[in-house]
Amino acid sequence: MSEFTLTTVEEFEAATNRLLETGAKVGADSWQMRVKNQTPHCKFGENGVCCRICSMGPCRITPKAPRGICGCDAHGIVGRNFLRFVAGGAATHSDHGREICNTLGHTEAGGTYQVKDPAKLIRIAKEWGVETEGKDIYDLAHEMSEIALSEYGKNHGISRWLSRAPEHTREIWHREGIEPRAIDREVSCAMHMTHMGNSCKPEALIRQSLRNGLSDGWGGSMCGTEFSDVLFGTPKEIQTEANLGVMVEENVNIVVHGHDPSLSEIICDLADSKEMQDYAKTFGAKGITVSGVCCTSNEVAMRRGIPMAGNFLQQENVVLTGACEAIVVDVQCIFPALGPLSKCFHTKFITTSPICQMPDSEFIEFDTGSAAEKAKKIVMLACENFQNRKKELVYIPQMKHKAWVGYSVEEIVHKLDGVTNSQVDTTGSTRPLLECVTSGVLRGAVAMVGCNNPKVRPDTAHIEMMKKLIAKDIIIIASGCSAQAAAKAGLMDKAAKDLCGAGLKRVCELADIPPVLHMGSCVDISRMMILAAELSKDSGLAISQLPVVGCAPEWMSEKAVSIGNYVVATGLDTFLGVVPYCAGSDQVAGLLTDGIRDWVEAAYTVETDIDKLCELMIERIEQKRAALGI
Amino acid sequence: MSEFTLTTVEEFEAATNRLLETGAKVGADSWQMRVKNQTPHCKFGENGVCCRICSMGPCRITPKAPRGICGCDAHGIVGRNFLRFVAGGAATHSDHGREICNTLGHTEAGGTYQVKDPAKLIRIAKEWGVETEGKDIYDLAHEMSEIALSEYGKNHGISRWLSRAPEHTREIWHREGIEPRAIDREVSCAMHMTHMGNSCKPEALIRQSLRNGLSDGWGGSMCGTEFSDVLFGTPKEIQTEANLGVMVEENVNIVVHGHDPSLSEIICDLADSKEMQDYAKTFGAKGITVSGVCCTSNEVAMRRGIPMAGNFLQQENVVLTGACEAIVVDVQCIFPALGPLSKCFHTKFITTSPICQMPDSEFIEFDTGSAAEKAKKIVMLACENFQNRKKELVYIPQMKHKAWVGYSVEEIVHKLDGVTNSQVDTTGSTRPLLECVTSGVLRGAVAMVGCNNPKVRPDTAHIEMMKKLIAKDIIIIASGCSAQAAAKAGLMDKAAKDLCGAGLKRVCELADIPPVLHMGSCVDISRMMILAAELSKDSGLAISQLPVVGCAPEWMSEKAVSIGNYVVATGLDTFLGVVPYCAGSDQVAGLLTDGIRDWVEAAYTVETDIDKLCELMIERIEQKRAALGI
Repeated sequence: MSEFTLTTVEEFEAATNRLLETGAKVGADSWQMRVKNQTPHCKFGENGVCCRICSMGPCRITPKAPRGICGCDAHGIVGRNFLRFVAGGAATHSDHGREICNTLGHTEAGGTYQVKDPAKLIRIAKEWGVETEGKDIYDLAHEMSEIALSEYGKNHGISRWLSRAPEHTREIWHREGIEPRAIDREVSCAMHMTHMGNSCKPEALIRQSLRNGLSDGWGGSMCGTEFSDVLFGTPKEIQTEANLGVMVEENVNIVVHGHDPSLSEIICDLADSKEMQDYAKTFGAKGITVSGVCCTSNEVAMRRGIPMAGNFLQQENVVLTGACEAIVVDVQCIFPALGPLSKCFHTKFITTSPICQMPDSEFIEFDTGSAAEKAKKIVMLACENFQNRKKELVYIPQMKHKAWVGYSVEEIVHKLDGVTNSQVDTTGSTRPLLECVTSGVLRGAVAMVGCNNPKVRPDTAHIEMMKKLIAKDIIIIASGCSAQAAAKAGLMDKAAKDLCGAGLKRVCELADIPPVLHMGSCVDISRMMILAAELSKDSGLAISQLPVVGCAPEWMSEKAVSIGNYVVATGLDTFLGVVPYCAGSDQVAGLLTDGIRDWVEAAYTVETDIDKLCELMIERIEQKRAALGI
Repeated sequence: MSEFTLTTVEEFEAATNRLLETGAKVGADSWQMRVKNQTPHCKFGENGVCCRICSMGPCRITPKAPRGICGCDAHGIVGRNFLRFVAGGAATHSDHGREICNTLGHTEAGGTYQVKDPAKLIRIAKEWGVETEGKDIYDLAHEMSEIALSEYGKNHGISRWLSRAPEHTREIWHREGIEPRAIDREVSCAMHMTHMGNSCKPEALIRQSLRNGLSDGWGGSMCGTEFSDVLFGTPKEIQTEANLGVMVEENVNIVVHGHDPSLSEIICDLADSKEMQDYAKTFGAKGITVSGVCCTSNEVAMRRGIPMAGNFLQQENVVLTGACEAIVVDVQCIFPALGPLSKCFHTKFITTSPICQMPDSEFIEFDTGSAAEKAKKIVMLACENFQNRKKELVYIPQMKHKAWVGYSVEEIVHKLDGVTNSQVDTTGSTRPLLECVTSGVLRGAVAMVGCNNPKVRPDTAHIEMMKKLIAKDIIIIASGCSAQAAAKAGLMDKAAKDLCGAGLKRVCELADIPPVLHMGSCVDISRMMILAAELSKDSGLAISQLPVVGCAPEWMSEKAVSIGNYVVATGLDTFLGVVPYCAGSDQVAGLLTDGIRDWVEAAYTVETDIDKLCELMIERIEQKRAALGI
């Protein structure tokens, strides 16, 4: 028997409780308390039958009031709300992607931003039919930046990235009229369709919600992922650590939080510099530790091995340690609670993006032009703030786990090449993985993604499902807060192979990988789409035939639903552990969980009993295997 | 004493009540009944303190639960909801504008769509620095179509239309960081800023809501208006009629409803043709009458004198006459109720746009390529349907008023030229109007706009305020459902001069205009912006110094708030008779009604007592006069 053990959720919670005691001392609020105040939730809202799209209302659907003032029924209201939810998510991911494209346009040789993966840039340029021969890499970067930005607003045509999908998938998208046009246009179109007095036919609304989702996953998010790799390097396997114990008491602790790596990359560079390390020492610290929360954390972990302090519902905990000199945020999933919370400690809560402006924060506006200067200002502020610690409040739970991360598609293929007999086999493909699946050594794969949500005991669903799945020889690819849950528990430690079934264990050993592969941040679910496309092309099977499913058991944000939509629209069944605000319409719920299968060969399954959800996934994987006769 | 009398709201209501009796006979639902079912409204929604932007909630702010689960307070929640409201409106107007730009690209000599105002196209092309010399007008149209479409998604720069604004206004927009970039980008940006974990600072949210509004009024809506003029002709003074009495019992009645004139223009053309008139006769009708509801009606009234059957809250009435063979809708403000209602009669409810797909409708998808064919199909369907009338249900209230419409900025200037002494004065400017204002013959002007809303006794606010204002020598420019209320009442009859103060009466007589000038549909509020800009340039005053204000006493839709935002951001105080969902945050409400004055020299006034609202407007106009010493 192995001596390898995971950290349990109970242990996470004990640490959190200890931190909440500190919080109580200083009168801090917490999400745990706010959940109590906000429970029970409004049933109309939960069911999606509340409409405040025009000012004749708000209207709410009940048996006695089956239509809103305009005559819209529950199906129309639920459908409109759902589409707007997707539009919010698609706009958000895509706008992050836009910033990355913009940063690409500001690269220069020896500058703050450089092209760290020129080969990838050239590969994408060739894909897009852009001449690369004899071109200066920075000229090419600027040209590609303009072309990528025009994906957001071009007058005509569909997303360039769609050409990466297998032919069968592209045919479906064309047939169903869900090929996304310019990214921003799909957002505007969604908002228009859902305006008072427009579409209320569920089919029309759900079709646009799939198209809007695709404009994210095969549009804005893919821009974000691919050009982040070009800018900051395509992730390769790297070791790091996860959980609050990565913070170092004697050091200046800077926590980066959010999603866009443009600032955090520069902060990481700077914090490593002798100048800043020395500066930290002048204030009595031994050095500087940068750690991360949420997807900014995933970005810098994947590329630099920067440790992950925690995921979404742990963001307040980093402040509660009393040892956080600065929490520096860019965009998305930032609790406004960090403002008042940081005021209870010495922590500087630094907002940096015009997109994310919050009260009780210090706003240091970041842009590509002044990135180095602003990053330096931030790091110095953090150093200076070390002396303001309230020592009696400092407590960092000594809990962390080793984690191997950095499994981009390129790295996965590289790892697979390692187990290939180069004399016989072709390299650079997903075939070794397909062979494991066909032979039954692996039963299939699950893409575990998404957030935390207090509606699910935080991290439990992620961790418990992963444990079950790997024990059944199902390999996991993970991203976002789901990946961080896995890392904190220890599932990204290569030693976790001991928790796997015999087949997956053997694969982990041969390929020298953990059973849960960290593929990045939430925009990086586009990596999973590329992987699915490659598996389909290498196998000759439709994506929907592969024994692969997606799962977001603790999802919370609009982005997650946008993701769900493009995953489903790509042909992968998707399993949710939190109910979307759709229960008020059997027509909308019916389409999402069943009807859309006729369009895109996949659909959603929603089940709040996490054990059942897991069983349903395994069942689906086995069904797909049976259908293939493997 | 004049014998001219207005039709009263009481008379409107009596007619409606008679129609509702027909409805009761056939078991039809009505907005009047649905309002009862939906009252009282949810207080959380009304105050804007309900958040369902992520699935941790929904959250609601109360004294005991002052923050949502993420820690967002009432100000953040209200501000986010407000910005999303604006984004919905801006996206909607602008997407309508996009369709017009697209239609411009499908013009051809002798084709279904032609350039009816080449001079205007050339004028705009020159404004945009596009070479026009020696260019075929259709080549120019196609080139301009592409440039206009790129306003929605260009990678860099601000809206081209901003250059029309006075320098002072442009300086304000630049200084305040609210110059709109690509139109769709501002929508995506708004959705991103309001996504979970992004901006919750009211200042930031309101600033973006102004920018998003400007991307509509000085962006998408202006595209809509200007290129509709190019396509279908710039409106000139023309006589028409308004109210249900325009429907003709012995004729096939086709009612066009919505906002985009691209289809209705073709239907009007066709319905006039001998072929279709003869076709109608084969089914026992004497001919075909096309009339309109909502802004599609305003579009074809302004350019063709097509009669206006009614405004927003009258849309069910046209079906209730039992004499409507087809209600043909394009986009926006269409009651889903028309589906089930039309089933109670013989009426065909024909939806035509992918943006507006509704149950219980016949969907005849319209596009520029097949416009003529689809329009013919629709007109023929209507003719064939004449024989299906249930005669016992037919009752058309014999109530209508003469109305002069068609007052584009060009036509207003043309009218002003008529009172100019061409020997002495320059023509082609707004100076005669300014002289009337300066001399006190006119006290000022009010732009009356917006919808109906059951929260206000329908049409009362529009009509009563107009009556008071013209009696005080304040001239009215009107658009949308407000204009239709005026037309129905008789305020667009030139005889209505008798209801004016002596000064305005004299102006009406000299210029041969009614005291309430119909400037078009709701996208045409961009015309009002151009007029304000011209007045500012011709007078040398800032727009905010002019004794001109905006008023939307019965507003209902997101578009109306987007409009309000660009009107205010252009420097015109705006008066609302329905409270936006903002009352739950004194910070947000305070910014909108006061704080933004420091940014853009104008703000909102909200007052549900319509008499008071009117007094406040007059007071504001007089304050502005006093400040100018006139």
